[in-house]
Amino acid sequence: MDILKTAELIEKGDLRHSARVMRSLDDGDPEALEVLKVLYPNTGRAWVLGITGSPGVGKSTLTDVLVTRFREQGKTVGVVAVDPTSPFTGGAILGDRIRMQRHATDDGVFIRSLATRGHFGGLTASTRGVVTVMDAMGKDVILVETVGVGQDEVDVAKMADTTLIVTVPGMGDDIQAIKAGILEVGDIFVVNKMDRPGGEATLSQLENMLMMEREGTRCPGWNPPVVPVSAANNQGLDDLLEAIKGHYDLLHENKAQLMNQRRRERAKMELMDLIQTRAKQVILKRLEAGHRLEDLALSIAKGEKDPYSVCQEVIEAAFSD
Amino acid sequence: MDILKTAELIEKGDLRHSARVMRSLDDGDPEALEVLKVLYPNTGRAWVLGITGSPGVGKSTLTDVLVTRFREQGKTVGVVAVDPTSPFTGGAILGDRIRMQRHATDDGVFIRSLATRGHFGGLTASTRGVVTVMDAMGKDVILVETVGVGQDEVDVAKMADTTLIVTVPGMGDDIQAIKAGILEVGDIFVVNKMDRPGGEATLSQLENMLMMEREGTRCPGWNPPVVPVSAANNQGLDDLLEAIKGHYDLLHENKAQLMNQRRRERAKMELMDLIQTRAKQVILKRLEAGHRLEDLALSIAKGEKDPYSVCQEVIEAAFSD
Repeated sequence: MDILKTAELIEKGDLRHSARVMRSLDDGDPEALEVLKVLYPNTGRAWVLGITGSPGVGKSTLTDVLVTRFREQGKTVGVVAVDPTSPFTGGAILGDRIRMQRHATDDGVFIRSLATRGHFGGLTASTRGVVTVMDAMGKDVILVETVGVGQDEVDVAKMADTTLIVTVPGMGDDIQAIKAGILEVGDIFVVNKMDRPGGEATLSQLENMLMMEREGTRCPGWNPPVVPVSAANNQGLDDLLEAIKGHYDLLHENKAQLMNQRRRERAKMELMDLIQTRAKQVILKRLEAGHRLEDLALSIAKGEKDPYSVCQEVIEAAFSD
Repeated sequence: MDILKTAELIEKGDLRHSARVMRSLDDGDPEALEVLKVLYPNTGRAWVLGITGSPGVGKSTLTDVLVTRFREQGKTVGVVAVDPTSPFTGGAILGDRIRMQRHATDDGVFIRSLATRGHFGGLTASTRGVVTVMDAMGKDVILVETVGVGQDEVDVAKMADTTLIVTVPGMGDDIQAIKAGILEVGDIFVVNKMDRPGGEATLSQLENMLMMEREGTRCPGWNPPVVPVSAANNQGLDDLLEAIKGHYDLLHENKAQLMNQRRRERAKMELMDLIQTRAKQVILKRLEAGHRLEDLALSIAKGEKDPYSVCQEVIEAAFSD
């Protein structure tokens, strides 16, 4: 791979080379990482919109409708669908791609389903890599769709400029999970499928919760709104787009403070994630030499050694200097 | 803390000292880790039962009913409720504790809600620590209840001896997520709330899916059954308990092969998780000296440096020997 040439082609929006680098990242190809290094300084222009929520809340339908709306506004769009993919088979959910098919022939839309745990690192590292490539391609808006509630998902949500938390009427436990898990990372709350019974109750439940927790929100000067929509029926989308624009405007008006603060926090998190993954890889490689890892695992499984002492020995040996 | 004395008291089932060590683990107290080291060789006797599924599928009700049944069989029980807790406030979901209150006065039941990301490491490391303490306390069965679909949750599920994947009728997207995410880690599939419409369809959907994927299951000689229950109405529980016992018997009959293989894999994962967390802590501590991390994050946020090159420099410096 010609690294500079590939980076140049990506920055011209070349689909084939962009897709190839994304694939190579997941395969752990070091050359792909070199391409990212070249691309990185010219990124940060795209608006990253996180869409997160439990399975069944209609995230994909909402993403689909938002893509259409952004395209109508003349914006180019990237979509990263982060699937809770099998750690064993690496298989991906077909559904999202199928539902997105109507954008498949639109050159202004680039869609990528992401396997959860590639060789690049964790879910977050992979997602960041793909977002960086799409950003470099010149996409105006990048939608990152994730299945909510897990810790990884919270990290992905923290990566976005604007995070939408999606729920539906009548999911009492879901609201509870939102409250505990990702209330603070939500910039806009969406109650989808408002045509279902119980919509109003869910709306006020969420609004009350947000009222009480207002102190905890991550964006000073922004009161996260709760927006009722029915994505499948194309209802409430104008309000949602207005809310998204409102948050975008706020962050851009206060760019010096808010954006930079947010992006510095994000850079710190990104760096430490990369370091953690890489450190593990380095140590793992050393341990795998001479079947040492297998032997240690066997001793632990037999109860001869405990994992905490073994970890301590390994760490002390690794950082002996 | 007197480490040996504390370990001894935990092994006698002392509630106060057990709870204290669990708390200290989350606080990152190194003494608590020393206690774990002492306890570890005497663990591995408890049967660890994972219960995982999306919010709203009734995991807590199911856990509650299973606790009652195991108690009726004379078994002592530990419950670890892994909440998708806020990374910011550290707040926990009250619901689970409230629902479990009827076991609160039963000495044979020990319940612990777990914050997702304590100082001990990730969700999985914290959970393992708590399970180790409960195991050392002499609990016969340990139920680990997690919100499904995230990568962390898959790791927690992989930790269990027997993993129950819970869903409900009519959650099409949920089934899809199960398929992609944790099909292979499921030993028993539970369709809860069978009193709802669409139960039979969900059952056959799951059964067909499992039929096709049979090759991928992690336990040779075991065909993961799909069990319809209605936990709130106490229906189908006999069948579920029979399925659990069936899986238990299989693993114990073939202890030499299956159990040891599974526990060796688990030991390897546990060790690498601990090492990854610890390595990150060591490097983070070095970077935080002299505000170096802040400076690096700022350079990255400004686009002067890219995180991949910075990571490489940090790693090369850390493992320079």
